[in-house]
Amino acid sequence: MQIAMIEDKIVPANELKPGYLDRGIYFGDGVYEVVRSYDGRIFALEEHLQRFANSMAAIKIAGVDIDRIRTRVHKAFEAAGISNAKIYFHITRGSEPREHNWGANLVPNFFLTVTEAPDDDEEKSRGIAVSTHPDWRWKRCDIKSLNLLPNVLARHDAVQKSCGEAIFVDEAGFITEGAASAFFAITGQTVQTAPLTANILPSITRKFAIEAGKEIGLEIIEKSLTPQQASDSDELFIAVTTKDIVPVVKFDSKIIGDGRPGKYTKLLIEEFRTFTV
Amino acid sequence: MQIAMIEDKIVPANELKPGYLDRGIYFGDGVYEVVRSYDGRIFALEEHLQRFANSMAAIKIAGVDIDRIRTRVHKAFEAAGISNAKIYFHITRGSEPREHNWGANLVPNFFLTVTEAPDDDEEKSRGIAVSTHPDWRWKRCDIKSLNLLPNVLARHDAVQKSCGEAIFVDEAGFITEGAASAFFAITGQTVQTAPLTANILPSITRKFAIEAGKEIGLEIIEKSLTPQQASDSDELFIAVTTKDIVPVVKFDSKIIGDGRPGKYTKLLIEEFRTFTV
Repeated sequence: MQIAMIEDKIVPANELKPGYLDRGIYFGDGVYEVVRSYDGRIFALEEHLQRFANSMAAIKIAGVDIDRIRTRVHKAFEAAGISNAKIYFHITRGSEPREHNWGANLVPNFFLTVTEAPDDDEEKSRGIAVSTHPDWRWKRCDIKSLNLLPNVLARHDAVQKSCGEAIFVDEAGFITEGAASAFFAITGQTVQTAPLTANILPSITRKFAIEAGKEIGLEIIEKSLTPQQASDSDELFIAVTTKDIVPVVKFDSKIIGDGRPGKYTKLLIEEFRTFTV
Repeated sequence: MQIAMIEDKIVPANELKPGYLDRGIYFGDGVYEVVRSYDGRIFALEEHLQRFANSMAAIKIAGVDIDRIRTRVHKAFEAAGISNAKIYFHITRGSEPREHNWGANLVPNFFLTVTEAPDDDEEKSRGIAVSTHPDWRWKRCDIKSLNLLPNVLARHDAVQKSCGEAIFVDEAGFITEGAASAFFAITGQTVQTAPLTANILPSITRKFAIEAGKEIGLEIIEKSLTPQQASDSDELFIAVTTKDIVPVVKFDSKIIGDGRPGKYTKLLIEEFRTFTV
């Protein structure tokens, strides 16, 4: 590269900060995780680190020591001193002049933030509305990558409709998952959610929600459902790391049940708490 | 956000450079263009600026003045003083702490680089090999977004196979386009390429290649073709901004024609030159 330009300012190539050459920005060439703590303890960090390692392997980012990532997460969490924290971290393949094919000996870039976990009291007690959106995502959503533009656009659409989450519907007419959550329907004593395929993120909160369901005696069915089936369910909820289980009381224009969080969903929220103490 | 961490170093939130909060890196929340110059003149800049405006509108990035982008491109091009230049530029939605839904009043970030256009003499005279790869991309490839991880992975796979480009094949078994190019097959006096759907980038070089084809008396068919049909074609080529028309002489394991650039492809390269002078 000979020169760069940032806004209206020309910058000689050798004065350009490495951040401007991050493959994360050119290609979304990286993977991420979000973990949270409850009352001073990070929840399910090992599961998140394992998934992070899987994501890196899937996109061939090599040489990142997971023990070192674990140490960094703990160090930042302690430094922040936030009891209920949301910890975000990503790795990108590294910084170099833009070329699709990456150079040898690239050094991955690590970035992490610690913030207060969102206050979800109201969402948990009143439930949220969700809206459907076509699933425009790529075909490897099992990889937690930085290619999140379809999620951003779907979430924006949901917010325009005064909804708290967008639920993706694929071309075959089945619900895959939420823009940033797993999606569940309860009918009778059965909980249904999409199976883990190449186009579903192996959500860790999903895993614990299923475990909570079993604990309270619900039957679990991993099978895709349609928007119509979701609308006709007794209860709906989403599962997301930062808020664990959030009741859904409206699905597109349809009020679910009596418009308040369902009894099993409330039991699941309570049961989930036993995992986090 | 309370604190951030870059590699092993903790950084207070208020000391974090805006580049680390770019939605481009968190979500690939931006769009880009690549233009090139031939002998000191930028080629088809207006077409690229129009597509750039279309991409921004599609992802709802508002308030960017295209006249200002044009001015920046010319200014950087002149400052670089490169006769045959490759000019890359992107706009991201802006910098803010990570949330899917974007904040009001965000100011988009503009970034541009100027480099020497690649020397394509050998590729043009000898042709390249290409390999097929499943089309894992999202469903809005008509938008030239920064979500390019599937393109990166496909191109890496191609390079591992000593190929110069990856050709995407969708789930229905049809070729869509290359990882960074449009794809064409010639049989008899007919040129075939995929039609412009929501999953094909409206390539500007494709448009000029079609025009060149008409100029030399070829029939143009915009219809998807299978890898088998591509293998059986008389000639193949790709079209890409930085190199215009590049002959393809090997498709996966199949040698095309006599393994050298085809006669019509060579005529198309010559015809294309008349557009760029």
